[in-house]
Amino acid sequence: MDSDRRKFLTATSAVLAVSTWSDATRAQAGKASVRKIATEEAFATPELVAAWLDIARSDPAASLDIPTGILSIFDNPRPGSNQDRFRRQLLDIDTERLRDMDGAGVDMQLLSVTIPGVQIFEPARASALAITTNDHLAAAIARHPTRFAGLACFAPHDPVQAVREMERAVNVLGLKGFIVNSHTHDLYLDDPRFAPVLEAAEALDRPIYLHPRAPSNGMAAPFRDYSMGGSIWGFGVEAGTHAVRMILSGVFDRYPRLRIVLGHMGEALPFWMWRLDHMAARRAKDGRMKPLSLAPSDYFRRNFAVTTSGFESPEVLDLVIKVAGIENIMWAIDYPYESSRDAAAFIDGADLTGEQRARVFYRNAERHFHLI
Amino acid sequence: MDSDRRKFLTATSAVLAVSTWSDATRAQAGKASVRKIATEEAFATPELVAAWLDIARSDPAASLDIPTGILSIFDNPRPGSNQDRFRRQLLDIDTERLRDMDGAGVDMQLLSVTIPGVQIFEPARASALAITTNDHLAAAIARHPTRFAGLACFAPHDPVQAVREMERAVNVLGLKGFIVNSHTHDLYLDDPRFAPVLEAAEALDRPIYLHPRAPSNGMAAPFRDYSMGGSIWGFGVEAGTHAVRMILSGVFDRYPRLRIVLGHMGEALPFWMWRLDHMAARRAKDGRMKPLSLAPSDYFRRNFAVTTSGFESPEVLDLVIKVAGIENIMWAIDYPYESSRDAAAFIDGADLTGEQRARVFYRNAERHFHLI
Repeated sequence: MDSDRRKFLTATSAVLAVSTWSDATRAQAGKASVRKIATEEAFATPELVAAWLDIARSDPAASLDIPTGILSIFDNPRPGSNQDRFRRQLLDIDTERLRDMDGAGVDMQLLSVTIPGVQIFEPARASALAITTNDHLAAAIARHPTRFAGLACFAPHDPVQAVREMERAVNVLGLKGFIVNSHTHDLYLDDPRFAPVLEAAEALDRPIYLHPRAPSNGMAAPFRDYSMGGSIWGFGVEAGTHAVRMILSGVFDRYPRLRIVLGHMGEALPFWMWRLDHMAARRAKDGRMKPLSLAPSDYFRRNFAVTTSGFESPEVLDLVIKVAGIENIMWAIDYPYESSRDAAAFIDGADLTGEQRARVFYRNAERHFHLI
Repeated sequence: MDSDRRKFLTATSAVLAVSTWSDATRAQAGKASVRKIATEEAFATPELVAAWLDIARSDPAASLDIPTGILSIFDNPRPGSNQDRFRRQLLDIDTERLRDMDGAGVDMQLLSVTIPGVQIFEPARASALAITTNDHLAAAIARHPTRFAGLACFAPHDPVQAVREMERAVNVLGLKGFIVNSHTHDLYLDDPRFAPVLEAAEALDRPIYLHPRAPSNGMAAPFRDYSMGGSIWGFGVEAGTHAVRMILSGVFDRYPRLRIVLGHMGEALPFWMWRLDHMAARRAKDGRMKPLSLAPSDYFRRNFAVTTSGFESPEVLDLVIKVAGIENIMWAIDYPYESSRDAAAFIDGADLTGEQRARVFYRNAERHFHLI
């Protein structure tokens, strides 16, 4: 496997063209000169794809998202289909991806491994795959240091190794935070077993991007019809429920400086925030809930940030600005699943001041992920 | 049981004071003179309470909401607690409820049986309870015809009897639509077994109010911690997922004049509408979904209406107006679980024109529920 990985790195290095996004290129693309950092951008490695296919083929009863999501993209997708394009673009970092970024005026992509990442494997294998995946990512960033930054994956269910890899990822590889693809074998990050991981993220002062995947087995049944487990509905329910569990469990009282990033305009938490506050207050008064130090909306502003990935609704952006605060909103594309040009056009056309635009396009990302 | 019911009706009749909400009373209450119809207002009957307690005590492993919700309110709640007040106010129609309405300037409550209604019983018993509950409701309305209207319950899992009761409820009892407390033994209304019910609602030209309850067993697991199955999070996930299932299943192509009412500002569908449209279009193009005639947002405007029950967020109201259209939004309190005065103050203070206020306060309810 190591040998395969070296071969892959050599092969991709051979075709890479070092590229930087100069002001001249930006002007050519006809875009405003605001720097653009895209913060939820997916990649895969050949090693991970092979390992995912193994599981998807051998265990069709695995979690809802594993057979359908993985097989549709990686198991001989129909040539010319969206799935075929996703496969090619996920595996590429050095060529088509950079051309796409140049075409849409994207200065930098913050890369993270696509779902389901390493969390579906048993702990030791997940930890081993996290190391090789993070190395792959760091090598890509080293080839294009002005164009890419990255989030490290780890195996939450192997906490000792996870903490070791989180420290290595930040201190040795220079990665900027972490990606967790929602549940790990049906467990959520509020589970006490994952406490070392949250503690490490806080101590390292790097955010965890809590990315959706299809609902965990304990809630999957109603999502098995109409392909509802995916991006059309189940992703948001899964990631939103994960975030609410973290809030109500008191995680942010225990780790007050932990920062969680939610994609997709906050996975509906901004919509529900008034109800969350209202019901949390009522339950605390009734003695029906372990008291929290703060209201859910206070945690949301203090401990969360939100990206615009795959969501081009001006009305929802307005709501999110009011609930999360403009300082906590970051632009994202969700490349290659979504169009970079459309995502840029959406935020270019949003009713924002120049100052707000600068924050959403790059300043908030620079601050939350320590990019400069 | 019939004898018990008669005794209850006689007992409550003895204490009722016929009350009408005159312009003078309205002026006294210091409210604007806009007529106010509240559209998601709960009641219970002694017969139903006894039957619920039976199930909740005998089967603690029943659906997530049955033991916790029912027992906390109806099984010796602590005197002076919210639960104790809910019990008293759910069972009352003629005294405290009317005083509360007068105090908050509420002209009319559209009554519906509180969760879990009759759907938790086996089919024959559910149908029998639906009949007695609807009779109880109709009798209360007959005592106060200017102050109350009502939605009929029925047993979706007993479709022949359900259709018979739906017809009787509208044509004989004069009820104005139907209440369905989300899943019925873990099945959703898109299930082909319920087709006769949807057909009847459309033929009778009366809406179905799709009220939340705790998540169905197939999705309950992550909601078992932190009391997350209830109004703080699980209710919205359950009802929203139910509504999305109906849209994606093609129900509204089969029943184009069927109208579904969602509480709580639309159970997050307005938040997700851009993604629903975007992903439905992509899936249709990829051939991964049975094609629908319309976009989800088109169905939402044509086949849904939304109430403001238990949700006092101006930002969310703005979003809902943009997505659902002002003609499809109705005011609601969620009495007795929420404060009538707070719900009235919220919408009185909302940034609406006089025309918009009139629509939300009463005109839309009059039209959707054929109240005049």
